[in-house]
Amino acid sequence: DGETILKGLQSIFQEQGMTKSVHTWQDHGYLATYINKNGLPPIVRGGAIDRYWPTADGRLVEYDIDKVVYDEDSPYQNIKILLSKQFGNIIILSGDVNLVESDLAYTRAIMGSGKEDYSGKDVLILGGGDGGILCEIVKLKPKMVTMVEIDQMVIDGCKKYMKTCGDVLDNLKGDCYQVLIEDCIPVLKRYAKERREFDYVINDLTAVPISTSLEEDSTWEFLRLILDLSIKVLKQDGKYFTQGNCVNLTEALSLYEEQLGCLYCPVEFSKEIVCVPSYLELWVFYTVWKKAKP
Amino acid sequence: DGETILKGLQSIFQEQGMTKSVHTWQDHGYLATYINKNGLPPIVRGGAIDRYWPTADGRLVEYDIDKVVYDEDSPYQNIKILLSKQFGNIIILSGDVNLVESDLAYTRAIMGSGKEDYSGKDVLILGGGDGGILCEIVKLKPKMVTMVEIDQMVIDGCKKYMKTCGDVLDNLKGDCYQVLIEDCIPVLKRYAKERREFDYVINDLTAVPISTSLEEDSTWEFLRLILDLSIKVLKQDGKYFTQGNCVNLTEALSLYEEQLGCLYCPVEFSKEIVCVPSYLELWVFYTVWKKAKP
Repeated sequence: DGETILKGLQSIFQEQGMTKSVHTWQDHGYLATYINKNGLPPIVRGGAIDRYWPTADGRLVEYDIDKVVYDEDSPYQNIKILLSKQFGNIIILSGDVNLVESDLAYTRAIMGSGKEDYSGKDVLILGGGDGGILCEIVKLKPKMVTMVEIDQMVIDGCKKYMKTCGDVLDNLKGDCYQVLIEDCIPVLKRYAKERREFDYVINDLTAVPISTSLEEDSTWEFLRLILDLSIKVLKQDGKYFTQGNCVNLTEALSLYEEQLGCLYCPVEFSKEIVCVPSYLELWVFYTVWKKAKP
Repeated sequence: DGETILKGLQSIFQEQGMTKSVHTWQDHGYLATYINKNGLPPIVRGGAIDRYWPTADGRLVEYDIDKVVYDEDSPYQNIKILLSKQFGNIIILSGDVNLVESDLAYTRAIMGSGKEDYSGKDVLILGGGDGGILCEIVKLKPKMVTMVEIDQMVIDGCKKYMKTCGDVLDNLKGDCYQVLIEDCIPVLKRYAKERREFDYVINDLTAVPISTSLEEDSTWEFLRLILDLSIKVLKQDGKYFTQGNCVNLTEALSLYEEQLGCLYCPVEFSKEIVCVPSYLELWVFYTVWKKAKP
């Protein structure tokens, strides 16, 4: 059988200084790849599992994915949860690597890198269906956290397969939090009308935003709408956190920063470059706040 | 010209939701790649610059390399210094991604992750030609650091192109350090014979070790020889630091740990999993020390 053949070949390949990697698939055996140090590993086309998930700046990278844990289409997007050997379960929304369960770096960065005091605060999370941010903030004794996630199926998948959320998604309501399954735009508009204000607004929407309404005819207009509404529901000394993009997409980052100059009120911002291990590229995170009144 | 054509095409590709990445080469123009979100970026074969450097566990990854800064063969190895857009200059020894100048994570980890006190200590560095470790330890007021690097050309290349070394490689001797351009095996044997002892021995040799002598007929025997000699020149309460390998090569890591049980004296060890951003995979680092005498 395969195992015996593999053992016989092993010493020959080792002699030639080749590196071995073995991938096991449930029920249909395994694949041993020997890679010559000076050559390129072959691309596996049409495999049962897609291991190639390009970076945001368009580079080809192969993930150590061994298993498809969850793969469903919701009304809004394709939701995949795949098992990476080194990172654990990894959630991919419409082809975009979102979060890995072993990886606190993203959650930490989008919460302000440990420099904020969330105790007794009012917090609004836009998106965040994997539950990572909600789970971490709830530990910090906030007054109230409201999370607005459009896609119930992301919550269902993460509740079952992503360690990031702890037990926080088991119920949509807790002592100090609530999860609304809604499009965040009408929710933000409602809050703005009611003059509700938050200490922190955390925008954890997917990098390419999704929405049910048709009033946004371009990605930038959509982003600016979210930004404007978010700043509207922010206290004068509140902070807005969001991911930007990979550090190499300098043009996109500049465009984003330009938008920050076009909001209904003047804002200031800072940015931080963070290594989120599973992203395989450095990522930029933004903090935005209202400019102090003169 | 290219720029005009590019601008004309831009809107068409954007409409289709494609991601753009532009690579510029000095003197011979640029390449704009449009990537369909659901497709794979094409592999560039025979390009002037090789952007593909497989991970230790044999996965195909493409680096954001724009420029060859240095490319020379020394008597021991091929030395390449390449410019990564996000990471800065990156040194690759015989195909093995060694260190990136922006990346303190590797140096920090192999120095004991900030938990050690180097002031007034005797330190031995094996390899380390990029100067990263030496530069960091010298800042911590050690008594004496001896670095043994086999390859003068690595030092020459890094001195010129890698920020990691500061000015520490400008001279091979300083107030509290010396650099020996030698094979570390005979040096270790000499020190062992002289009963010299160090507080810290840091093994920063390349993952696949190189040596001038022929007495090591396999990688494992070579590794065990280095380990045995290093432990011999270590004080009873001294520590030995080294990199292991990527976290996915569990078999290789187990074999390494087996070797630790076959040394001339009993040792104990701990390991830590660290994200070195430029490696694009998680890496294991070891701390080894002599077992306390009963």
